Formats: sequence, structure tokens, C-alpha cells
Amino acid sequence: MELALAARLPGADVLPARLHEAMRYSVLGGGKRIRPALVFATAHAVGLTEEDVEAAACAIELVHVYSLVHDDLPAMDDDDLRRGRPTCHKAYDEATAVLVGDALQTLAFQVLARDPALPAAAAIRLRLVELLAEASGTFGMAGGQAIDLAAQGRKLDLVQVEEMHARKTGALIRVSVMMAAACVPALDPRWQHALAGFVNPIGLAFQIQDDLLDVLGDATTLGKATGADSERSKPTHPSVIGIEASQDRVRLLHQQAFDALAPLGPRADLLRSLADWLLARRY
Amino acid sequence: MELALAARLPGADVLPARLHEAMRYSVLGGGKRIRPALVFATAHAVGLTEEDVEAAACAIELVHVYSLVHDDLPAMDDDDLRRGRPTCHKAYDEATAVLVGDALQTLAFQVLARDPALPAAAAIRLRLVELLAEASGTFGMAGGQAIDLAAQGRKLDLVQVEEMHARKTGALIRVSVMMAAACVPALDPRWQHALAGFVNPIGLAFQIQDDLLDVLGDATTLGKATGADSERSKPTHPSVIGIEASQDRVRLLHQQAFDALAPLGPRADLLRSLADWLLARRY
Repeated sequence: MELALAARLPGADVLPARLHEAMRYSVLGGGKRIRPALVFATAHAVGLTEEDVEAAACAIELVHVYSLVHDDLPAMDDDDLRRGRPTCHKAYDEATAVLVGDALQTLAFQVLARDPALPAAAAIRLRLVELLAEASGTFGMAGGQAIDLAAQGRKLDLVQVEEMHARKTGALIRVSVMMAAACVPALDPRWQHALAGFVNPIGLAFQIQDDLLDVLGDATTLGKATGADSERSKPTHPSVIGIEASQDRVRLLHQQAFDALAPLGPRADLLRSLADWLLARRY
Repeated sequence: MELALAARLPGADVLPARLHEAMRYSVLGGGKRIRPALVFATAHAVGLTEEDVEAAACAIELVHVYSLVHDDLPAMDDDDLRRGRPTCHKAYDEATAVLVGDALQTLAFQVLARDPALPAAAAIRLRLVELLAEASGTFGMAGGQAIDLAAQGRKLDLVQVEEMHARKTGALIRVSVMMAAACVPALDPRWQHALAGFVNPIGLAFQIQDDLLDVLGDATTLGKATGADSERSKPTHPSVIGIEASQDRVRLLHQQAFDALAPLGPRADLLRSLADWLLARRY
């Protein structure tokens, strides 16, 4: 993924050099690459190679990084540390960070439109553009961030917290699986259904796990400050239903996801291992 | 255009309501709609109806408005007034303005991917995504804004000022014509060439005219503060080559554009009128 992303970013010596350098700093600065891993594991499950979906994985990761760069801005979450390094606006400046996010989003769609590594069929590429736009917009990631900002300091119930998570993090997790599936020209609808049934609970469980780590994790392993959610009075699963009930909910969603995946048999083993790792992770 | 844009924006009562309301405030708050006008005039020249290109015009205008909302942010140009009304971050808040820009960009690509009003051929839609991404990214609009920010308070020569303008404003002006042309399945390459030869000088002349208005215009007619460029020591044509030479350059580019358009004959008369208006405008 590092090489794949690096190859798709403009060189740090190309005009405007500072912007390109800041884009590379933000994208290539580590990160768990969870969404690309989901793309690759899904590709394996539906009989595609990693090469078939590499560009789609890059596009999703570019959107993810753009959202981190903008979410870290002083006007948003005001974070100084990301992946153990200064955030983009700290390492560069705020104006550059705004442009980095903007340009990474554009690059994501550009990759889907013209990257030679993707399946050539225009209909498939266009469907990928549509899926990524839907997952990134106000009914997905950007909308989730808006709900999150509006909710700070207010009380949400469990349904509202889950609606926020479904958009803010869930949409991009979900689309990682669905975009890989969309690279198959005519996927068996039962497989499509099984994959959707898998990734919906995984997306939510992943976010609950993230909230739990913010309460229980330690900053050195995470590479970012902990306790940030409660400091900002962000509504999270642990704050609404408590730590133990949140852990129970992760286990239940985990089981639901595995049940949904049954029709795919052993070809989905990579997806299962990835889900196991995601929900047991400590960072 | 107001109706076409309004129909493509989520309702102000749809969750997240404040974000959707701020998007509608920013997009529907007036504006000259120059880029859509170029799309429609080009459609007329190549034998398409306004309906054929309406969605493309919307996508371009959404990208234009996203760039205005982000450029107005305190970390960027720090403008309080736009189109005679408070800028998005003044009317709402900075975090909302960041998200408004982000979500408008996403919506632009979503419109190209799935708007039923566009030509159905996936290859054409995909080409529109590619063209818009190219014009918006670091080799287009976002890159031009980065060069502009880096240039403030520094001396640029004429070549550098024109390189900045070609990206910052020129790219989106140019793509307005080229996207309309791309909606024709197999456009005569000579027409394609004529349109490119027309819009390149028009894009630059338009920006020089904008810079001239910043020096010579009055704030009431413009709906924004004048003298802002020189206050920020932004390199502009008037500041580099003087007012009179800038006016001469607009006239020369105007003539170049008309010469290039000759092969299209009278079917390009709307484009010619539009160019005349653009380069004579007082706001």
C-alpha cells in the first residue's frame, strides 16, 4: 500500500511543491491501512487479485486521509498529534492542511476515473465513483462528522450514536468491501448480500472498539491522545451504555458478521481473520 | 441554474440539517454562474440541448462554490463578505464551512456519476469525472490556490502570475467548455481544437479582468471588498505589468479567442456574446 499510494501522489518536487510535500506527508505517514486491507481481503473472497483492486484501495485511503487532515484542523477536533507525528496543519499550516484535504479528495476520484490498474470497463469505474461519493458525502462520512460536531456536549441516545457512527466511520468501512465487490462484473447477488451483511456490523463494531480504546488504551500505543472523546463530551458507546455493555455489543456484532459471511465458505477466511484482528486490536 | 442546483442539493430539513442548510446557503446565494453559462453556450455550439449538459454545469458550479467557501476561510483569504452576504464561516462557523466545501466537492462527482439528466453512456460520464478532477486538483484549481498563497508578499514575474491564474481560475473555466464538448459522443477534432483555442485565452483574460476590477471596481457593484489583492500583496497582472498593459492584454486575448472560434461559424455566437460580456463586465 505504501508503494501503491506513493506512486499515485504527485512528487514532492513538482509545483506546487509544498502542497505536494504536505500531501505525501499526510498520506505516507503510517496508518493502519484498515480500509485497503478490507478491499484486499474482499478481493480474495470474490476471486480478484490484489492488482485488480489496488487503485480502488488507494482511492478509499486517500478519502480517509483527507478526512483525518480536515478533522484535525483547529476549527474541528483541534488535534496536534496523528499517528505519532504532528498533524498536517502543525507540520505545515492551516491553509495548506485545508488544501491537502481538498486535493486528496479530488485525487481519489481522479484515480477511479483513469488509473490504468483498475478494470477497464467504464461502467465498473463509474459505479466505483458513485459508491465512493455516496460513502464520503453528507449521507456518509462528511454527514457523520457534522452530526458528531453538533452532538458535542449534548446527550444522544444509543440510536443516535449508532446513526452518527454508521455515517462517520461505517460508511467508508462498508464501501471498502462493496467497492472491491463492485470490481467483479456480475457478482452473485447472494455473495453481494453476504458481504453487506458482514461489513455493516463490522463497521459499527470497529467504531465501538475505537471508542473503547479512547477510554482504555494508552497514548503511546495509539499514537494519539486518549481520553479526548470524554474531554470534548463526545457521545460514544462507552459514555452512553457503559464499558461492559459496549464490549458485549462488539462481541455480538462480531458474531452477526461471521454468520452473514457463512455462504462464502473458506474463501472468506482472510476477511474473517481481518475482522478478528480489527476487533481485538489495541491501537 | 438556481432550480437545477437546488434540485441536486439535499433539503435543508434533512439530517444533518445544519450542514445541508449551509450548503444551500453557499450554493444558492446568487453568483454570476459564469461557468454554467459557458457550459450552456458550448452545448449550443456543438448541437446539444441545455438539458444534456445541465448536470455537468451543476457539478462544475458545485466545485466552484466549494473552492470559494474554503478560500474565504480565516486560514486562507479570511473574507467576511461574498456575493454581498456573510461568507459561509461567518453565517455558520468554521467547522461547518470546512464540511460544506468537502461535501460540495463530493456532491459534484456524485452528480456526474449518477445524475439521470446526463448522457447515459458510462464512458462519457467517466470522462467528465476525469476532466473535472484534473481541473480541480493540484494541477488545476487547488494547485493554483496553493501557488497563490505561497506568492503573497513575494514578487512573481508575468510567466509565474499567468501559471498561477491558468490553474486557479483558468482550469475550471476551461473545463466548463471541454466538459460540454465531451458530452458529444464523437466530436469533430477540429471543433474540439477550436473550443480549446477559444477557452484558453478567455480563461486568462477573465482573471486579468477580475484583477482589474479589484483595482478599479467598486465594492457595492462587486458584492465584495475591493483593493483586497494589493492589501494582501497578491501578485496580479495590474501589479506586475500595470493597468494599461493589463487592459491591452485582455483585448489581445479576446481577439485570439475569437480567431480560434472561427471554424465553428455562427453556431458559436452565444459563446462569442458570453465572452464579450465576461470581458466587459463591471462585477
